[in-house]
Amino acid sequence: MSSSAPLRALNIDNINPHVKAARYAVRGELAVRSEKYRAQLAKGDKGDLPFDTIISANIGNPQQLDQKPITFFRQVASLLENPALLEKEDVLTEALGYKSDVIARAKWLLKEVKSVGAYSQSHGAPGIRESVAKFIERRDGYPADSANIYLSAGASSGVNTLLHIICAKPESGILVPIPQYPLYTATLSVLDARCVPYYLNEGHGWGTDLAEIRSAYDKAIAEGTDVKAIVIINPGNPTGASLPAADIKSVLEFAAEKKLVVIADEVYQTNVFEGEFLSFKKGLRDLQKASPGEYDNIELVSLHSVSKGMVGECGHRGGYFELIGFDPAVAAEIYKFISIQLCPPVIGQCIVEMMVNPPKEGEPSYELYKSEYDGIYEGLKKRAFALYEAFKQMEGVDCQTPAGSMYLFPTITLPPKAIAQAEKEGRKPDEFYAFRLLDATGICVVAGSGFGQKEGTLHFRTTFLAPGTEWVGRIIKFHKEFMDEFRD
Amino acid sequence: MSSSAPLRALNIDNINPHVKAARYAVRGELAVRSEKYRAQLAKGDKGDLPFDTIISANIGNPQQLDQKPITFFRQVASLLENPALLEKEDVLTEALGYKSDVIARAKWLLKEVKSVGAYSQSHGAPGIRESVAKFIERRDGYPADSANIYLSAGASSGVNTLLHIICAKPESGILVPIPQYPLYTATLSVLDARCVPYYLNEGHGWGTDLAEIRSAYDKAIAEGTDVKAIVIINPGNPTGASLPAADIKSVLEFAAEKKLVVIADEVYQTNVFEGEFLSFKKGLRDLQKASPGEYDNIELVSLHSVSKGMVGECGHRGGYFELIGFDPAVAAEIYKFISIQLCPPVIGQCIVEMMVNPPKEGEPSYELYKSEYDGIYEGLKKRAFALYEAFKQMEGVDCQTPAGSMYLFPTITLPPKAIAQAEKEGRKPDEFYAFRLLDATGICVVAGSGFGQKEGTLHFRTTFLAPGTEWVGRIIKFHKEFMDEFRD
Repeated sequence: MSSSAPLRALNIDNINPHVKAARYAVRGELAVRSEKYRAQLAKGDKGDLPFDTIISANIGNPQQLDQKPITFFRQVASLLENPALLEKEDVLTEALGYKSDVIARAKWLLKEVKSVGAYSQSHGAPGIRESVAKFIERRDGYPADSANIYLSAGASSGVNTLLHIICAKPESGILVPIPQYPLYTATLSVLDARCVPYYLNEGHGWGTDLAEIRSAYDKAIAEGTDVKAIVIINPGNPTGASLPAADIKSVLEFAAEKKLVVIADEVYQTNVFEGEFLSFKKGLRDLQKASPGEYDNIELVSLHSVSKGMVGECGHRGGYFELIGFDPAVAAEIYKFISIQLCPPVIGQCIVEMMVNPPKEGEPSYELYKSEYDGIYEGLKKRAFALYEAFKQMEGVDCQTPAGSMYLFPTITLPPKAIAQAEKEGRKPDEFYAFRLLDATGICVVAGSGFGQKEGTLHFRTTFLAPGTEWVGRIIKFHKEFMDEFRD
Repeated sequence: MSSSAPLRALNIDNINPHVKAARYAVRGELAVRSEKYRAQLAKGDKGDLPFDTIISANIGNPQQLDQKPITFFRQVASLLENPALLEKEDVLTEALGYKSDVIARAKWLLKEVKSVGAYSQSHGAPGIRESVAKFIERRDGYPADSANIYLSAGASSGVNTLLHIICAKPESGILVPIPQYPLYTATLSVLDARCVPYYLNEGHGWGTDLAEIRSAYDKAIAEGTDVKAIVIINPGNPTGASLPAADIKSVLEFAAEKKLVVIADEVYQTNVFEGEFLSFKKGLRDLQKASPGEYDNIELVSLHSVSKGMVGECGHRGGYFELIGFDPAVAAEIYKFISIQLCPPVIGQCIVEMMVNPPKEGEPSYELYKSEYDGIYEGLKKRAFALYEAFKQMEGVDCQTPAGSMYLFPTITLPPKAIAQAEKEGRKPDEFYAFRLLDATGICVVAGSGFGQKEGTLHFRTTFLAPGTEWVGRIIKFHKEFMDEFRD
């Protein structure tokens, strides 16, 4: 592959070693192979493939799997893209069925951004940031200030920004849950900083375990790591967990004790199937209210996105983060850092605005909005439990009850012969299993090793976004045949 | 500002020093002050301000300054956002005036991306990358392969990617023209790599000067810098230059001799007012054709964007880069790096497609497209020369003939008293001048020191995007009063 490397300025041995060290399995070799199959099937060239469709269960990409966008959002977006349509309101309302609140929202957003083709302020249009602040106030019952809201190109870009600011040197460390969404470890690799892993408690619905966090912290400190922050992904990716209030409280108390920035990745905050979502911001304000003065030093950042939930607009790359308790001088550096890339996509910012400020009861678009939103929610919940029930009946598969996010992360216990075969093929056992699943069924999942897992355990992550249940049958059939093939 | 810093995890003294070291004047203190004035005026609270409007001549943001988007692009985009409209073709064509090629393009793009709300491949939707490759073939008369095209969130994101790959260690160095667009120096600061500055030749229309490049290279090598690449911005930002073929050839020959990656920032390729744009890709292929075998080792990357030119869709964050001559193993690392941030905005990718494949002669939307495109071009050219003529009559101001991009970068010679006053106020003289200009006229430019300039020279960068010529009069009047105030 690199046969001509010596002739060139750049080769695999002299590029940035920290980029090379990064791993991001969600779009890795398995995903690339599934795209190859998809292209092959699209050409009508099925060949030897034992399936007719590819199910991309490797990535939370709702609209790729036929989740319909919310009508209100897209009607408004069509007017933002072509404001000339607003000169024909009668056509919009009579012939196209656009309601008056669609038109009003488009006009208001255009006033705020002038044009979706113009750069905005680097942290987003002021009016949109104000909408976000009001949403947070309604959600938590505590004030929020638009000056602390930073719109971003999806939550990923926000995480990238924050880790860039926090990681000051190779000894800088960030507590990251294992299993985790690999954005965290990949970005820390690129930054040449340290991931300080703490294991989630699979037996307790993948909750946080304070003793485990404490021991991970102590070990890192003993190794000379300057631990600066703790990441929490709630609801959990890849785990599907939804954290109880007690877990949130204990993490905040620990962060206060050790003076850690809390990075709360809350992009799945509306994907909750068990109990209610509790934000870290509310958890913090509750704690501060209960013990005045004691938790004032906590720095918290909460991230959200239009990519997930019932919105599912990941292609629009919209998101935001809220800074709580940050030093203004540090916030100014965050602003400067994001200004180098100018601004997040403006139409994505507008989708953020609509996500946090959807049609309200009594407004013309409310009924349709609510029925679409609820329909998506119920569909996701139904498929989550259908998949969970399927996993329950599969030999050697053990899965926590679906509680939140878009994923299930079952444990798989593979026969020794399968593990031996994996080793022979130079693959980790869970990767071997995932490749076999793809080759046999067209279903693409991600091996647990892509997220991290306890030594000696094996998992895979699957979304439950794909429509229908036929594909669940494919998994059951494959798994039985796989176990039969490798059973002792 | 940081009085509470010791209580917090993060303060200005312990965050990432490389982020702190970065400078990005385009959105710096001056721009922030201008936004403050704008907000004040918007509230109807003029106060003591001696002007009624803010002219943001600091940043190439065409639609913020009333440049109208191209109708074809926005009509298609409206259908991409709301595909339900395609079910009412008769309304679109009869009541809304959408032509058949608008509808056909929207359908084709939707087939390629499925939904603008879905993630695409990390380097962009395959069909869109193919359109880009065909555009490059038409432009240069040489083949291009869509496998080498990487869509990005504007060109800025592409530059960020490339510098991340190339800069392997603190000694890694990149030759950067001075003056330059500060994205380069800012990103190199963040990466803790070295900027190797080479001066452009102001007296020769801000062209490249091989002797100067050679001497900058030799000096860097002597200092232990591992020089890996050379950046060229053509047409020039901030200089307004358009490079002749001879300059391009000499840079390529030098890059081949020293084995340097050539980073050709060609985002202003359609903003050319003098001669014709010649791409580095064409320059390279011409060279390879003339001397077979001699220049096969050159690695070139060319960047383009929807933000500039007559498109001006910067808020959509669309762009691409083409890799030429890269090692496939290095390209795979580039793919992995961008996959961590998932994908560029999909609607921005669609705008890229329309930019590189606009309506053709004979197609229904062609006439309107052409008249809009030509109108914008002629308007920019007219305003560039109006500004140039104004600068010619201003005392102590000297400006190169407008040749390309969206900027003029005149030299200003300030009286010693002004320089003394600047020093007293703790500002660089050109910053002092730019703040005075803003405070007196509401016009925001960027001081030359934000881009780099030869020791002892002073400049400012202004766009010529603002409509009308009234604001040019404001500059002339301010400048005269400024010179009168400080003249010896």
